Amino acid sequence: MSIDDGSLREELLVARAYLSAVAEPPAPALVRFIGRHGVQRAAELVRAGDVPDAVTEEVEARREHVCGERILGRARENGIRLLVPEQREWPHERFSCLSDATEIGIAGMAEPIALWVRGPASLRAVTEKSVATVGARAASGYGETLAAEFGYGLCGAGFTVVSGAAYGIDGAAHRGALAAGDSTVAYLACGVDMDYPAGHSRLLRTIAERGLVVSEYVPGTSPRRHRFLVRNRLIAASGQGAVVVEAGARSGAGNTANTADALGRPVMAVPGPVTSASSVGCHMMIRSGKAVLVTGPEEVIEVIGPMGTSPVDDGAGQPRRGDGLDRDAKQLHDALAGSDGASAEQLARDSGLPLRKVRSLLPALEMAGLAVLGENGWVRRA
Amino acid sequence: MSIDDGSLREELLVARAYLSAVAEPPAPALVRFIGRHGVQRAAELVRAGDVPDAVTEEVEARREHVCGERILGRARENGIRLLVPEQREWPHERFSCLSDATEIGIAGMAEPIALWVRGPASLRAVTEKSVATVGARAASGYGETLAAEFGYGLCGAGFTVVSGAAYGIDGAAHRGALAAGDSTVAYLACGVDMDYPAGHSRLLRTIAERGLVVSEYVPGTSPRRHRFLVRNRLIAASGQGAVVVEAGARSGAGNTANTADALGRPVMAVPGPVTSASSVGCHMMIRSGKAVLVTGPEEVIEVIGPMGTSPVDDGAGQPRRGDGLDRDAKQLHDALAGSDGASAEQLARDSGLPLRKVRSLLPALEMAGLAVLGENGWVRRA
Repeated sequence: MSIDDGSLREELLVARAYLSAVAEPPAPALVRFIGRHGVQRAAELVRAGDVPDAVTEEVEARREHVCGERILGRARENGIRLLVPEQREWPHERFSCLSDATEIGIAGMAEPIALWVRGPASLRAVTEKSVATVGARAASGYGETLAAEFGYGLCGAGFTVVSGAAYGIDGAAHRGALAAGDSTVAYLACGVDMDYPAGHSRLLRTIAERGLVVSEYVPGTSPRRHRFLVRNRLIAASGQGAVVVEAGARSGAGNTANTADALGRPVMAVPGPVTSASSVGCHMMIRSGKAVLVTGPEEVIEVIGPMGTSPVDDGAGQPRRGDGLDRDAKQLHDALAGSDGASAEQLARDSGLPLRKVRSLLPALEMAGLAVLGENGWVRRA
Repeated sequence: MSIDDGSLREELLVARAYLSAVAEPPAPALVRFIGRHGVQRAAELVRAGDVPDAVTEEVEARREHVCGERILGRARENGIRLLVPEQREWPHERFSCLSDATEIGIAGMAEPIALWVRGPASLRAVTEKSVATVGARAASGYGETLAAEFGYGLCGAGFTVVSGAAYGIDGAAHRGALAAGDSTVAYLACGVDMDYPAGHSRLLRTIAERGLVVSEYVPGTSPRRHRFLVRNRLIAASGQGAVVVEAGARSGAGNTANTADALGRPVMAVPGPVTSASSVGCHMMIRSGKAVLVTGPEEVIEVIGPMGTSPVDDGAGQPRRGDGLDRDAKQLHDALAGSDGASAEQLARDSGLPLRKVRSLLPALEMAGLAVLGENGWVRRA
């Protein structure tokens, strides 16, 4: 295992391992309790049963039955490392939205207490530029082909593909990414040693060798229905945006998309034949305005923003961009007036446009020479 | 021929026939000139060359070479009738947006001076509830199947399908409508006696027998490239909304959609496989926000509004509606507060939402019991 902070003590890791195992995620009361008392003191208090009622509810069932040392030792024996918020590798930029979400009252959105990881990559480094690419398990050939193309194109453009390693769209997106490079992260709804789904054990091994397989569940934890929904928030938070390639009328991918939306991440969806049940969910999201329609990875990058890469200019994009921007772009351009530098969030408040819309318009304004990202934020240009 | 107004004099028809033939549509200066001087006096002044420069430019080439009586007589011999704004059958409600458009400076948007018509239906009656259903000539099998289904579903729900009788999507939409009833109108970019395109001569005959074939070009006029664009404004104006079933990156259907949008009509587009060139234009319109994504005729009716029929409730629609409405619907619901009755246009101004959006949200609010259409316009409900 690699601890990238020399001052980090083994006792801290043991305490985090204990706290990670003692409550079923998400555990918002326990997360707040740790914030108030510090990791090691919180672990002692939990073990002693000296905690407020809300924490008791979360930890009562397991507090006397789990042992941090043992869990941590066994994980290391199996090549699994523990990643904790005190390490530099912890992707605070990605996960901070989850604690904000708790504060503003989005239920079940606590940050993970720790993550169990297989793989050589740095989670923070690979998710610095990343896209959650998700979709239905019951995907069509069309959907799987596209998911692989999106994975390949995004990874080729320097973005990490974050997904859930499920059959169908998830697997195809991971495979596409692996075909273009090493940047893919799979978040599991079970222990990272569980090889679930069974048919993806080879895929998971490959991801663990070249990217990262991650879970907030301690090794050995079985998948459960509710864990998929809880896990989805980590996929949604880990991407700078979420793309749904195919989804039925009710699917887990819809849950990830809703979560990404609630966290302020732009949501995108790929259309398909209206005669295909596998695209119904995507069409619903686009139709309702929750998702932006995207037809290829270059359009995803256009929505997410440059972030180091310049968006692909495919020619055909030009008239479309001009067509659509008119009203909203003007509104946003107005909101930039008189500001020495504003964040997307400020601009959303000022303009009254949805944050998602602001995020997608800013790069377009920038390309049109109407806005520039300065040291203090976005600045207007005439 | 059927003149539905006993007091209408033959001289008026002859004068309109002359004015219809003397200028290449659209002829905004001539239309304004007729408005100022009256039909018969305007015809005399044009014939005498006693007109302002702007009118001269429009009529110079033909003013001595066309004869109203002869054109009208020959048309009647061929079973073609002349429809003029002085008749009760003239669809003022549909076309008034074209003269507004001239006033607000949308180029080339003049009302037609007269229409040449084959068919038994009343243009005003059949376009009271109508949807422009258009798309590419180079359509895929997927597109043609859907166009027929949209035509069938819309006609079955009491809406007239207005289109351009072209190969591909247009033809399929007309055929679908004919399969469900008699309500379909074809606007041609040539004389209504020209049977263009040739492969659709039988389709055109059927439409003329059961619906209407209409043109502002005098009988015998050949199709020309620019006439398709000019004709498109009549299709756009004649529908309460426009649906694009399939369109390439640059297509005439895109022009009709842009025109419908400029005229304040809701624009809708049907998605398809992102791998299909025939859906690229539809995806561009949806992505840019110009068009609302629709997957079936019931969603078209939902966007256009009840207008006599209750929108189809397909069950699957429920969660989607709830999902998407949140922010915009609230904004619109707020805009309704304290009003004794407001039009969609007023609400668009008050809420800052695009008129198209307001038009699509109002029926949804109504169905949710949050708004009701009273005598003076839309009223809020708690």
